[in-house]
Amino acid sequence: MKKVLFATTALVATAGVASAEVAVTGWAEMGLFGGDNAMGMGIETQFFTDIDVLFRMSGETDNGLTFGAGVDLDENGAFTVNDDGGAFVFLSGNFGTVTMGDTDGALDWALQEANYGNAGSIADDETAHAGYLGSYGDGAYDGQILRYDNTFGDFGVALSVEMDDTGMMDTGFALGFRYGMDLGGADVGFGVGYQFIDVANYLPGNLSSIAIPAQDFDGEYDIFGISASVASNGFSANIEYTDFASDTAGEEEASHVSLGLGYTTGAITVSANYGIWDYSSKFAADSGDITGFGLAAAYDLGGGASIHAAYGVSDYSDIANAPAAFDDLETWSLGVALSF
Amino acid sequence: MKKVLFATTALVATAGVASAEVAVTGWAEMGLFGGDNAMGMGIETQFFTDIDVLFRMSGETDNGLTFGAGVDLDENGAFTVNDDGGAFVFLSGNFGTVTMGDTDGALDWALQEANYGNAGSIADDETAHAGYLGSYGDGAYDGQILRYDNTFGDFGVALSVEMDDTGMMDTGFALGFRYGMDLGGADVGFGVGYQFIDVANYLPGNLSSIAIPAQDFDGEYDIFGISASVASNGFSANIEYTDFASDTAGEEEASHVSLGLGYTTGAITVSANYGIWDYSSKFAADSGDITGFGLAAAYDLGGGASIHAAYGVSDYSDIANAPAAFDDLETWSLGVALSF
Amino acid sequence: MKKVLFATTALVATAGVASAEVAVTGWAEMGLFGGDNAMGMGIETQFFTDIDVLFRMSGETDNGLTFGAGVDLDENGAFTVNDDGGAFVFLSGNFGTVTMGDTDGALDWALQEANYGNAGSIADDETAHAGYLGSYGDGAYDGQILRYDNTFGDFGVALSVEMDDTGMMDTGFALGFRYGMDLGGADVGFGVGYQFIDVANYLPGNLSSIAIPAQDFDGEYDIFGISASVASNGFSANIEYTDFASDTAGEEEASHVSLGLGYTTGAITVSANYGIWDYSSKFAADSGDITGFGLAAAYDLGGGASIHAAYGVSDYSDIANAPAAFDDLETWSLGVALSF
Repeated sequence: MKKVLFATTALVATAGVASAEVAVTGWAEMGLFGGDNAMGMGIETQFFTDIDVLFRMSGETDNGLTFGAGVDLDENGAFTVNDDGGAFVFLSGNFGTVTMGDTDGALDWALQEANYGNAGSIADDETAHAGYLGSYGDGAYDGQILRYDNTFGDFGVALSVEMDDTGMMDTGFALGFRYGMDLGGADVGFGVGYQFIDVANYLPGNLSSIAIPAQDFDGEYDIFGISASVASNGFSANIEYTDFASDTAGEEEASHVSLGLGYTTGAITVSANYGIWDYSSKFAADSGDITGFGLAAAYDLGGGASIHAAYGVSDYSDIANAPAAFDDLETWSLGVALSF
Repeated sequence: MKKVLFATTALVATAGVASAEVAVTGWAEMGLFGGDNAMGMGIETQFFTDIDVLFRMSGETDNGLTFGAGVDLDENGAFTVNDDGGAFVFLSGNFGTVTMGDTDGALDWALQEANYGNAGSIADDETAHAGYLGSYGDGAYDGQILRYDNTFGDFGVALSVEMDDTGMMDTGFALGFRYGMDLGGADVGFGVGYQFIDVANYLPGNLSSIAIPAQDFDGEYDIFGISASVASNGFSANIEYTDFASDTAGEEEASHVSLGLGYTTGAITVSANYGIWDYSSKFAADSGDITGFGLAAAYDLGGGASIHAAYGVSDYSDIANAPAAFDDLETWSLGVALSF
Repeated sequence: MKKVLFATTALVATAGVASAEVAVTGWAEMGLFGGDNAMGMGIETQFFTDIDVLFRMSGETDNGLTFGAGVDLDENGAFTVNDDGGAFVFLSGNFGTVTMGDTDGALDWALQEANYGNAGSIADDETAHAGYLGSYGDGAYDGQILRYDNTFGDFGVALSVEMDDTGMMDTGFALGFRYGMDLGGADVGFGVGYQFIDVANYLPGNLSSIAIPAQDFDGEYDIFGISASVASNGFSANIEYTDFASDTAGEEEASHVSLGLGYTTGAITVSANYGIWDYSSKFAADSGDITGFGLAAAYDLGGGASIHAAYGVSDYSDIANAPAAFDDLETWSLGVALSF
């Protein structure tokens, strides 16, 4: 998205205030979407419109700390103090950066998920399928995350905490490391991390509680993840592995592998991703593989406008207890995305 | 409303991005309102305050297509993709303009409704009475309209579609033509169009389901409309005729005629409009004429501020089954409107 | 809060429009909060995030009246015309200023409440305790206040009205006077005023309907208030007295005294306030003193960033019928406040 900065620093110079900036940007999308809904039933092909205005604020303290915050026009939940509601606040200095609110936990911060080189779409079909994993254990509580991160040359480290406001569940936390280097003209990246969550009736990623009717996660879980990515000459690829291990004997567990591929040439970008869950319940009929893949293509018209097509499909057929409608759950969209 | 453009193009020149603009404007109103409410009961005369902030975004692709979108601060529904929620998105070029979202259908686009030369008001009393018709068959579904329009000299043409997201009703569509010319110093305009809608328990325009208790529109309807307008030396006048014909034998039907008059001299604008529905049900007690008229006056204080007074009244007395309270349903408002 | 003005007047000069300005500013807070909730139960110490974007609009008529309005991003209620919803609109000239919407009534306008010299906090603990009184009789109806105010040298006068939209209660109104002078380098201020309200099941200020279980205000009340304040060399102090007298024999009544102290030296501000209600019901077990005090401290980092700590405590122990949990109801917060 193109950033349209209101250089308020300059504008307010005569008013005698120091450095502070409110950037107002926006985006809009129009098109068509269709496929199957979350209940597994076909939906009428119909018009798609979406729009948002983004407020990004930044400033600097007298001794050189930078700070900022962001909220969007659509985030009506952002004004409840005990929930992030889509807003984030940060403070940054030599010590690193502290961010609170709607931000990535340390595991998500460290890993490269399968949307590497992704062409994007208006309805996010390519990242909404069951095989896609984007946020690991983040959001297991209220989504209000506190993360500290810092970089040392090519090396980055982060630590994050997410709390249960009721105090009934143990506090979640995560630790992540990432490393990036230039290897003969190719950008190579590695990430590894660990996350702890304490949950009830929980399913990771995009897994559907309708498709997996009964046997979900309860109790404490250790999540371990690792990813590798490479980008060169318009090509990009990544692989990511995650394991969710229960601390409770007999509880459900799962592991996940995903691959992402992208290619950009001139105005055209095409991308694909595939993911597979190995889901294991104590009941065989609730166990098995769940897969999904996504495709996206974009044509950049310049000036912030682009045409997007995307497709996503989920397959729960290996889970005996999953409803038949979830054997082949598809969504697609086609339209124009505009950024301002 | 006066437009306060943030000329972000200039401001961001140093940031290296091309043309993109976010215009932030606003308006506010304060005053008093009173009369009768939608249930036909008197309401306490009370304070009136309203406010909004408007975000209008625009850009241009590399090959010269222009695009844009708009959303207001009060449009919390704008962020649902299957509903327009008050937002609109457009793409424009030599081929014409394609607009999706909260926009006029082709019939509404073509016709001049009775608010021609209207002085405006804070509570819209002059356009909220039963005799006023402003949107024809638009909004019969979810209000998410796709319209194509183009102009060839003085001549304009538009085509629009509005879909039923459940797929149970036939897709609505409309076609409109308009023509404008300068006739010896007078601006003369003509509009004609056709719209198809498929509805259930529907009443056109501002007609009240409380006042017409049982016999409303069901099934497929053909709407035909025509309008003519003239403006010269501060005077303006228009006439508009619309016919709603049912495709189902024995179903309710209606036709509508309205007149609008306006006059502006210096800072003062006064306007009036009158409309009459000929509503026919298979039951005589639900049939008859429904009329309404509206008056508005404004005094322009300059700089975006103006004083407004308005009155509107609806009369269902010719409908035997309408409650007595609807024989003379009045609303009024008085206050200041400010634009920024 | 630092104002970041978009000097739209200059920017739009080329567009040919006169003077109109939309200022977009914002703030954000992050930290921790804890203590007891409004039900008297302990709450889990947890993350605190809050954010807002402010739109302040202003203009000028051709003959020199100034006008303006304001609304914030979090004020979703601002778009209902019969409620203020957090928005305000004003018109100002030689005759004084008329403001409608979310604004102080004349008594609140005249008096200096106990937050004089207040360091501020992220969770407002220091002004949310039971001993704090900030709005007198304002908000007894729908919060949509019309106030006229004017100043004559050091002397100011205001008159305000707040209406009951149902028409069942008598219209509330208030009258206030204030006077400020420089006394040997010290800023000295006095305020006095009167307010009339007509209420049902009402409790003034921050008094809790859970803590005072049954005997609240009903009927017409006369509120009389007076305050004095002084500020010099970084020190500030004020005292305020308010009396709520019922027009109905045997109804509950109350009087309130509060003190505020503040001190600023360099980047540091510390402040404290204390308030006491003398609450009298016809039942002895519902009568007694209710007290509260608040502490706040801030360290200004410059550039709009500051660190804040605050504490507030409420004590209903003198009210025999109040639940025991309300003998010592505490809240606290610690964090960073950022303004843009």
